[in-house]
Amino acid sequence: MRVYGIVMAGGDGTRFWPLSRQDTPKQLLNLSGKDPLINEAIDRLSRIAPQEIFVVTSKHQEEQTRRIVGGRLGRDHIIIEPAARNTAAAIGLAAIEIVRRYGDGVLVITPSDSYIGNEEEFESVIRIAVQAAENSNCPVTIGIKPTFPATGYGYIRCRAVKGRACVATEFVEKPDFEHAKRYVESGEYLWNSGMFVWKASGILEKYKELLPAFYADLCRIGDAVGTEEELKVLAEVYPNFEKLSVDNAVMERTHDILVVPGEFNWSDVGSWDMLGCIYPPDERGNVIIGDAVQIDSSNTVIYSKEKLVATVDVDNLIIVNTPDVVLVCPKDRAQDVKKLVEELRAKKREDLL
Amino acid sequence: MRVYGIVMAGGDGTRFWPLSRQDTPKQLLNLSGKDPLINEAIDRLSRIAPQEIFVVTSKHQEEQTRRIVGGRLGRDHIIIEPAARNTAAAIGLAAIEIVRRYGDGVLVITPSDSYIGNEEEFESVIRIAVQAAENSNCPVTIGIKPTFPATGYGYIRCRAVKGRACVATEFVEKPDFEHAKRYVESGEYLWNSGMFVWKASGILEKYKELLPAFYADLCRIGDAVGTEEELKVLAEVYPNFEKLSVDNAVMERTHDILVVPGEFNWSDVGSWDMLGCIYPPDERGNVIIGDAVQIDSSNTVIYSKEKLVATVDVDNLIIVNTPDVVLVCPKDRAQDVKKLVEELRAKKREDLL
Repeated sequence: MRVYGIVMAGGDGTRFWPLSRQDTPKQLLNLSGKDPLINEAIDRLSRIAPQEIFVVTSKHQEEQTRRIVGGRLGRDHIIIEPAARNTAAAIGLAAIEIVRRYGDGVLVITPSDSYIGNEEEFESVIRIAVQAAENSNCPVTIGIKPTFPATGYGYIRCRAVKGRACVATEFVEKPDFEHAKRYVESGEYLWNSGMFVWKASGILEKYKELLPAFYADLCRIGDAVGTEEELKVLAEVYPNFEKLSVDNAVMERTHDILVVPGEFNWSDVGSWDMLGCIYPPDERGNVIIGDAVQIDSSNTVIYSKEKLVATVDVDNLIIVNTPDVVLVCPKDRAQDVKKLVEELRAKKREDLL
Repeated sequence: MRVYGIVMAGGDGTRFWPLSRQDTPKQLLNLSGKDPLINEAIDRLSRIAPQEIFVVTSKHQEEQTRRIVGGRLGRDHIIIEPAARNTAAAIGLAAIEIVRRYGDGVLVITPSDSYIGNEEEFESVIRIAVQAAENSNCPVTIGIKPTFPATGYGYIRCRAVKGRACVATEFVEKPDFEHAKRYVESGEYLWNSGMFVWKASGILEKYKELLPAFYADLCRIGDAVGTEEELKVLAEVYPNFEKLSVDNAVMERTHDILVVPGEFNWSDVGSWDMLGCIYPPDERGNVIIGDAVQIDSSNTVIYSKEKLVATVDVDNLIIVNTPDVVLVCPKDRAQDVKKLVEELRAKKREDLL
């Protein structure tokens, strides 16, 4: 069965503000120093599904996304959501598009904004998952062997079966530290990478079962695919979809989910403190992208391409300098950078959003 | 007796790096938002000695100083040290210049880089000191009534006498916190402001007594004042002066020092943490010069004229943004900003010094 790569690029990435902005969400940033994350995601999937990769993004981000993706994808391989409606809608849209355009296929669905260090290992894990997905109607997720008790990730509890696949017995949302510690120590849990492999027809079947009204609307869109009405119907139907994550609305309510464990130096790069997953810290734990001079400083994340950052006696601090903002925030509050964005929105500082 | 204002502008002000630089020391910065500190010092002295104010600065800073002082002073009212040799040399030079040019006079000697909030009170205190100095050959210093147990200032112990003047019984260098606390509680100590009033002839007499070799060299310079040889002799003699502070070399070895106490909202603005002396902190203790947005942040000093500074959950931190540097440093390490300057010098980053 033909394999299609689906790159979900709907995130607004406020947690990487001030580098990420409304028009330049995280997936469009070159955080790794190699390529924008979305292009790394596309190039990785090219190992498995060359010529058959689709990006799902929102109207708002279409222009920037097309500009950055460039010649990597054909014009009709960018699927536009009229409005961002979370992952359940985005994946439903991708599935119905593939079914109506090509009949069916195995979808390899990945976020557009994670980091993967070992691409060979990624390819080999995905190939195992594709094989497993071809032989069933069920989803095959990729679980990451946890390396520390992360509280920022969801966990999947697994029961080992033969070979390299397990059966998922439970999906757990972001736990507190104590639970995370127990999960990691037990050896029974994997991080939920947000990547999964599933037949397009299987997805639609499951939506029909669990989300019948949602499914009916998807079919209205599906009936219009390839016709002159397509954009009109999409604009009419899509913005009314309830904002549901595929994890909550589908995965957690589905049995028989397979999990293929992966160890390929993965990170969701969910906030500034995670840059240490991409860039090896120096002997004092400092991650420095750009120019810095430091006295008595440790465990900092410094991002400044434009000017020197000088520190004395700071620890566990994030310091980001962009052309119009300096951000200073402790690592353990990195998730709250989005509060600054909300504050600026409330203050109508549109130039900084 | 005629009164002359002497503004000592020899400091390199590395503690205000990255705003202060080799060519733009602290006294040339507009830290108060009104005028460069040196011009505030000159304008304050104009209340007492209009037309008769001299700036002593080093060759290295001459050009910038002349540019910033502008028309405030006549060309020959800027006395140039061929090299910076600390305050004993600078004051000796000023005294010999005044004596050789004008016979004698009362010198009102002040730093060029402190802040004074209440200029009327300053004027009234200086007038008292001038009166006292006219009637004796001894120095009259200005002591500041301490408002907190500062460890960054020297203290003068005083015995009250009649009127507004006291007698100094002891000069104490920067104390530790416990001592500072005791000094403030005792009510017997004043901060050493580095300002004093003294007859030019009295200064030279004291140098003759305490620093005879130094005095002999000053006389060589004095003999050349007004001749074609002046610059040559100055360049020959001055750079060989030992680097001595007037406090250590003269004041601490002199009896019969009068002290006039002053309360005129004085600060030496010795480092970034002191900006709160000029700018009233907000209700969370934050001093913000420029543009900032803050979540859960307190007691910060933020200086950024050029772009927004955004903080989450930081306390007691200094954040300075200049066109080519971002500085982040806890307030209690503000003195160590100069270590960064040393580090950059060692790394030959001349562009940043």
